[in-house]
Amino acid sequence: MGVVIPLEDKNPTTASVKPLIHLTASDMDKVNQLILSKAGSDVEMIPEVANHLISSGGKRLRPMLTLAAAKMFGYQGDGHIKLATGVEFMHTATLLHDDVVDESDLRRSKPTARMIWGNQASVLVGDFLLGQAFKMMVDVGSLDALDVLSNAAAVIAEGEVLQLSVAKNMATTEDDYLAVIRAKTAALFSAAAEVGPIIAGTGKAERDALRSYGTNLGLAFQLVDDVLDYGGKAQDLGKNVGDDFREGKITLPVVLAYRRGSDDDRAFWRSAIEDGESDDDALERAHSLIARSNALNDTIARAEHYGAMARDALAPMAESPTKAAMLEVIDFCISRVN
Amino acid sequence: MGVVIPLEDKNPTTASVKPLIHLTASDMDKVNQLILSKAGSDVEMIPEVANHLISSGGKRLRPMLTLAAAKMFGYQGDGHIKLATGVEFMHTATLLHDDVVDESDLRRSKPTARMIWGNQASVLVGDFLLGQAFKMMVDVGSLDALDVLSNAAAVIAEGEVLQLSVAKNMATTEDDYLAVIRAKTAALFSAAAEVGPIIAGTGKAERDALRSYGTNLGLAFQLVDDVLDYGGKAQDLGKNVGDDFREGKITLPVVLAYRRGSDDDRAFWRSAIEDGESDDDALERAHSLIARSNALNDTIARAEHYGAMARDALAPMAESPTKAAMLEVIDFCISRVN
Repeated sequence: MGVVIPLEDKNPTTASVKPLIHLTASDMDKVNQLILSKAGSDVEMIPEVANHLISSGGKRLRPMLTLAAAKMFGYQGDGHIKLATGVEFMHTATLLHDDVVDESDLRRSKPTARMIWGNQASVLVGDFLLGQAFKMMVDVGSLDALDVLSNAAAVIAEGEVLQLSVAKNMATTEDDYLAVIRAKTAALFSAAAEVGPIIAGTGKAERDALRSYGTNLGLAFQLVDDVLDYGGKAQDLGKNVGDDFREGKITLPVVLAYRRGSDDDRAFWRSAIEDGESDDDALERAHSLIARSNALNDTIARAEHYGAMARDALAPMAESPTKAAMLEVIDFCISRVN
Repeated sequence: MGVVIPLEDKNPTTASVKPLIHLTASDMDKVNQLILSKAGSDVEMIPEVANHLISSGGKRLRPMLTLAAAKMFGYQGDGHIKLATGVEFMHTATLLHDDVVDESDLRRSKPTARMIWGNQASVLVGDFLLGQAFKMMVDVGSLDALDVLSNAAAVIAEGEVLQLSVAKNMATTEDDYLAVIRAKTAALFSAAAEVGPIIAGTGKAERDALRSYGTNLGLAFQLVDDVLDYGGKAQDLGKNVGDDFREGKITLPVVLAYRRGSDDDRAFWRSAIEDGESDDDALERAHSLIARSNALNDTIARAEHYGAMARDALAPMAESPTKAAMLEVIDFCISRVN
């Protein structure tokens, strides 16, 4: 595939999420307990569906960001546990609804909830988790945190609808695509990070810094995810290389390869993405066009750009092990393509 | 059909929603403006889908309850406008998701949003409206109101999932069914009414009274709706008599007729509701079994019971035109079966 990782002085390929995991471990235990307790219900199907997705092995990066961002500013209470759990529930609800909307069969190599319990249960359990998320957030009692999180919920939903309109549409520009992932992915990363300083009662500069960090980390994270689908290893991905292509998803590598291709190439992309002619031969041609157009390396370069913005956003904050761990996560997200 | 309306001294058949409409008219203008503005988005499909449902001619009883309940306790601010709009958006989001889950083709004689824009848009625009609802509620700045409304959102979603498990299941008891409508319908009526005294800053007794009023009004409203489907006029309903039957919905008239029927009758109900053998002949037999078992009159009697509870809940509150209008709405809801 020829994916070239731009090596920097700090050698991002050795960057790890482990320091963040270590620093938030005892709080994450509490988050995990709260997740299990709040996904519970006398209505049997709710814990079944919720636990299926919750136990499916995501990294829980978003709640870790909330915990770390609160810790970074010396927060001593326990409201960050509920906010982090709420953030994870918002994410889980989005995944449940996404799989219905995208008609996805697999997530992380396991059948999606909708394949086991049906679209109906997926829609409604998503609604339930969203309701629980808001209840927990209200419990914490911070109107500023509620403002940020409810705004994120509205932006995420708006982004999902926007995505419907760019779906299978090869005229999508890089800006169009960025608007989608800014809303769908970056908004929750941003809110997850910003509620940390909010609950810790910092000033505006700290809130702005963490919001910017979260937004740009989210963009970098999503762009690398896009690259992985055209070049990663299936066992790391929890999905098969080529899933995005077969589902006709527009991602940045496709946007770039299309724009840089010949008329013939563009006709191919339209038939593959817009008309669904995306069999294994087509996937092979897609890989070759993406390689020829250098689309993966340039998508990684874009991710590096947002990673640099995330790094600079945190620059004025006092040095601490938490800050170091949050910076390392940027490099870790990008180094996943190696 | 032989639906007999139990006439009381106060002659409920002349009860009207008009006094409530009149008392809340200027506030409802503001709610309607806010609905249009908050259902707006640069993402074209969002206002299209939202306006389709919003303009479909519902009575907006729920936001009127919020406005009236705030007025009842002399509230002078404008937070009740946002709360009422949020309540209506929560209701609208629920309808969008319901139609997807129930695979409904028509609502109020118009094609459902999912028939025009698809299930995907209906799920996502529902999520968007829910996000907007929470944003507006957070704006108002009352954590107590947020607590009540976020709790309602979680209960409603839980009720919807519960409904999936009782769907097409003739073993459903009256208690099972009540648990569903308590969560699905009454929880939002209850929250809509309770946030009035909350925002007006009353004591606990007033909150308890309005919550109880809302809950029991919601139960009465839903039971009468169930009756209408087996005996109302299509033009009043916005749906055709027999829709619930054809969709295999369990409602109280069906629960009662099944339990009071012979073995043969019960075999018929199972084949109709559980196996979907619900053609016109079957509907005719259903009507006859429901008439023979007195199920409609007894469902109305149940509705009267909850109506009486709603009335008594408001009894200790000071007399006022608003209170009188809210009491009349109870009788109006029940008198719809005439």
